[in-house]
Amino acid sequence: MSEDMKQAALDYHAKPRPGKISVEITKPTQTSRDLSLAYSPGVAEPVREIAKDHENAYLYTTKGNLVAVISDGSAILGLGNLGALPSKPVMEGKGVLFKRFAGIDVFDIEVNSESPQAFIETVARIADTFGGINLEDIKAPECFEIERALIDQCNVPIFHDDQHGTAIVTAAGMLNALELQGKTLEEARIVCMGAGAAAVACMKILISCGARPENIMLLDSKGVVHSGREDLNQYKAMFAVETDRRTPADALEGADVFVGLSGPDLLTPEMLKSMAPNPIVFACSNPDPEIKPELALETRDDIIMATGRSDYPNQVNNVLGFPFIFRGALDVRASEINEEMKVAAVHAIRELAKESVPSSIAQAYGVGGFQFGREYIIPKPMDPRLLEFVPAAVAKAAVDSGVAGKKYPDHYPLKSMEDII
Amino acid sequence: MSEDMKQAALDYHAKPRPGKISVEITKPTQTSRDLSLAYSPGVAEPVREIAKDHENAYLYTTKGNLVAVISDGSAILGLGNLGALPSKPVMEGKGVLFKRFAGIDVFDIEVNSESPQAFIETVARIADTFGGINLEDIKAPECFEIERALIDQCNVPIFHDDQHGTAIVTAAGMLNALELQGKTLEEARIVCMGAGAAAVACMKILISCGARPENIMLLDSKGVVHSGREDLNQYKAMFAVETDRRTPADALEGADVFVGLSGPDLLTPEMLKSMAPNPIVFACSNPDPEIKPELALETRDDIIMATGRSDYPNQVNNVLGFPFIFRGALDVRASEINEEMKVAAVHAIRELAKESVPSSIAQAYGVGGFQFGREYIIPKPMDPRLLEFVPAAVAKAAVDSGVAGKKYPDHYPLKSMEDII
Repeated sequence: MSEDMKQAALDYHAKPRPGKISVEITKPTQTSRDLSLAYSPGVAEPVREIAKDHENAYLYTTKGNLVAVISDGSAILGLGNLGALPSKPVMEGKGVLFKRFAGIDVFDIEVNSESPQAFIETVARIADTFGGINLEDIKAPECFEIERALIDQCNVPIFHDDQHGTAIVTAAGMLNALELQGKTLEEARIVCMGAGAAAVACMKILISCGARPENIMLLDSKGVVHSGREDLNQYKAMFAVETDRRTPADALEGADVFVGLSGPDLLTPEMLKSMAPNPIVFACSNPDPEIKPELALETRDDIIMATGRSDYPNQVNNVLGFPFIFRGALDVRASEINEEMKVAAVHAIRELAKESVPSSIAQAYGVGGFQFGREYIIPKPMDPRLLEFVPAAVAKAAVDSGVAGKKYPDHYPLKSMEDII
Repeated sequence: MSEDMKQAALDYHAKPRPGKISVEITKPTQTSRDLSLAYSPGVAEPVREIAKDHENAYLYTTKGNLVAVISDGSAILGLGNLGALPSKPVMEGKGVLFKRFAGIDVFDIEVNSESPQAFIETVARIADTFGGINLEDIKAPECFEIERALIDQCNVPIFHDDQHGTAIVTAAGMLNALELQGKTLEEARIVCMGAGAAAVACMKILISCGARPENIMLLDSKGVVHSGREDLNQYKAMFAVETDRRTPADALEGADVFVGLSGPDLLTPEMLKSMAPNPIVFACSNPDPEIKPELALETRDDIIMATGRSDYPNQVNNVLGFPFIFRGALDVRASEINEEMKVAAVHAIRELAKESVPSSIAQAYGVGGFQFGREYIIPKPMDPRLLEFVPAAVAKAAVDSGVAGKKYPDHYPLKSMEDII
C-alpha cells in the first residue's frame, strides 16, 4: 500500500468519529408511551412469550437478523497473531460488508482466550444472542477444533469464513475454469500449495463438488503431504496420498489445477511449464500471489488464472459468499450451514458469472463490460444480482436438506439491493 | 397492564420487523475504493496502529462509544430467573435507552452460564470489545461477586445498573426530600425494607453522601438485620447493627426515612403513623409499591413520597442515571465508575430538580409545569438538560479522582439532545 493509501485508511477509520458502525433504534421512542412499550413495563410481554417458547425470540428481537463476527485475533489478515483488540477494525469491517451486501446486522466480538477450549466456552455461552456466528481470523489448526465444537454446542449456524467462504468462491471459479478448459472436476489432477485452514476447506468442497480425493495433492512447507509422513496433524493426514512425488516440482508435473494458498512467488515458471495442457492456476496468496499474472501468462498462454487481487481479472473474493450464504441461512432460520448449502452457493455464484450483465445494472453498479470467459469466471463483488442468486439457492438447499426452521417469517428475504442501500 | 397494552407491546416488538435495533454503517461504502479502506487491504493500517498501542482502538474503532448490556437473565425485571434468551427484549430495550438519551451504541449480550465464575470468565474475555459494560438483571447475591471480579479483571468501566443506577437516583431524590423536610442525611434514621442488590447499593451510596451507618437499619424477610443473626450473607452482614428491634414495626418507630425495595403493601398505615414527624417514604417496589401513595397521604399529610411508577409524582427511574453516567465515563475514557463519579451523578441529578424549566424546553419535551417541591424532587426522564448536567459532573469527578484516560478525543461529549434525536 502507498503511504497515501495508508493515511486514507487511517483517516477513514478515525473521522469524523472513530469506527465504522453505530447501533440505531428502529422503533419510535419519542413519547413516554413509546418508551413504556420499548422498556418497562411493556417489554415484560415479549419476555414472557420467549420464556414460553424460545423460538419467539425470532419474532420479538433482532436475533433473526443478527450475526456475530467473532475472532481471537490469532490470524489477522496477513498480519498474524496480534491479539483480540487489534483485530477489531477487521471485525467491524466484516460487519460492514455483511450489512452493505446483505442487510445483516452484525455485532463484532473480540475474544481474549488463553486456549481453544476457553474460546469455545465463551462463544457457546453467548451464542443465544445471535441468529448466526461467523468465525474470523482464527489460526489453524485450532480453528478446526473450535468450529467443530461450536457446531456441536450451538443451535445457530456457525461458519468459519476463512475456511468455507474462500473455499466456496474458489470452487465456483474453478468449475467455470474447468468448463472453459474442457476439463472436469472428476478427472482433474489438483495440487494445492498450502495446507492451512483455507486449503483444507477448499479441497473438501472440491471433493463435495465431484473431485476425487486420490487426484488431490497437498503441499506444505515440507513438500508433498504423503502417506509416509509422520509429522502430519489430523487435518493434513486426511489428504495424505501414496506417492513417490516429494517436491512441489514433482507434484506439479502434469497437474491440471494449481491452487495456491501459501506465499509469494512459490510457483516458478518451470513448474508452470511442467503442468498439463490448458492448466488452471489459482494463485490466491495475498497481496502477493504464488506467481505474478504477468509472468504466468508470459510463460504460457493456455492458462486460466485467478488471484485474490482486485486489480487483476478473476478475483477470488470472500465477499461474493458470506453475506449471501448467511442471508439464505437466516431467511429460513437454518440450524446450520451444511455441505449442501455450501455447494448450492458454489453453483449459484458459478451460474451468475455465466449470465450476461443487463445494461441497467452494468451502468448503475459499474459491473459492465464482462462476458463469461477466461477473464471472467467469477462475478464482481459489486454485482447486485448476487443477492438474488445466492441466498435463494442456499435457502432452498437448507429446506431440501431438512435444516430449515419449523417456521420463519416473511420479513426476509430482501428482494434487491434497493432494500439495502 | 391492560390486554390492549400487552398487545401493543408485542406489536411494537414484532412489526414491521422483529426487534428494536439495527447496526448501521457510518462510513461511505459505495465504491470499491471505499470498501478497500473499510476492509482489506486498508484495514491493515488501523490494525497495526492498535497492535502498537491498544489505546488506538479508541481512535479507529467504535469501542469508545460502545457499551455492552449483559445479562444472564437470572433476575429479569420483576419476572425472576427465566434464563438468558428471554431477557433479550429487556437488554435490547436498555440499549435503546442508552442510545435515545445519551447517543451510546450498545450491543446486548445474553449469557448462558452455569455459574457466576463462568459468567465472569465469559464477560472478562469479551470485555476488550467495549468501552464499558453495564450488567443487568443478575440476581443477588451472585451479582456482587460478579461485579467485583469484573472490576478487578477488566480495564473498562463495569456498572451494575440494578444496584448503582437505582441507588444514585434514589439518593438524588432523597437529598432533595430531606432538604424540603428540614432534615439532614447525617442525622436521619433510615430504614430500608429489602436487602437485595439495589437495597445494599442504596444504603452504600447514602453513606457515601453522608448518612451514618449506625443510623441505617435493613429489613429482610426475617426482620431486622442485626448483629445477633447468624444467617446473614456478607453483604447483609455489613449492615448488621446492635439493636433490640426485631420487626418492621419495631424498626420504623421514630424513623425519618423509609426506603422500600421489597414488595407490595408491606408498609402498613400503622407503621407509617409511627415514623418521626415529616417522614420520607420511597416505596419503590414495582409495579406495586410498599404502600399506595393514596393510602400513605391519607394516613398522614406531612410525608414526601416517591415511587418507581411514572403515574405518580417523584418517579425513581434509572434512566435518569445510567445513560448519562456512562456518557460521562466514556467522554473522558474513565477506567472505572468509582464512588466519586456516582456521588457526582447524585448531586447533578439533584441539582437539576431545583432548576426551573425554561419554557422552550417545557414545551418541546413535555416537561413543563414542575417546580421544586414535595411533588417534584426528581427530574423527569424526558428532561433534555440531564445530558448537560450529569455527564459533565461525572466526567469531572473521573478527572479529579484520577481515573480518566491519559488522552481522550474531542468527538464527545455530545452537547445537547439535538445531537441525538
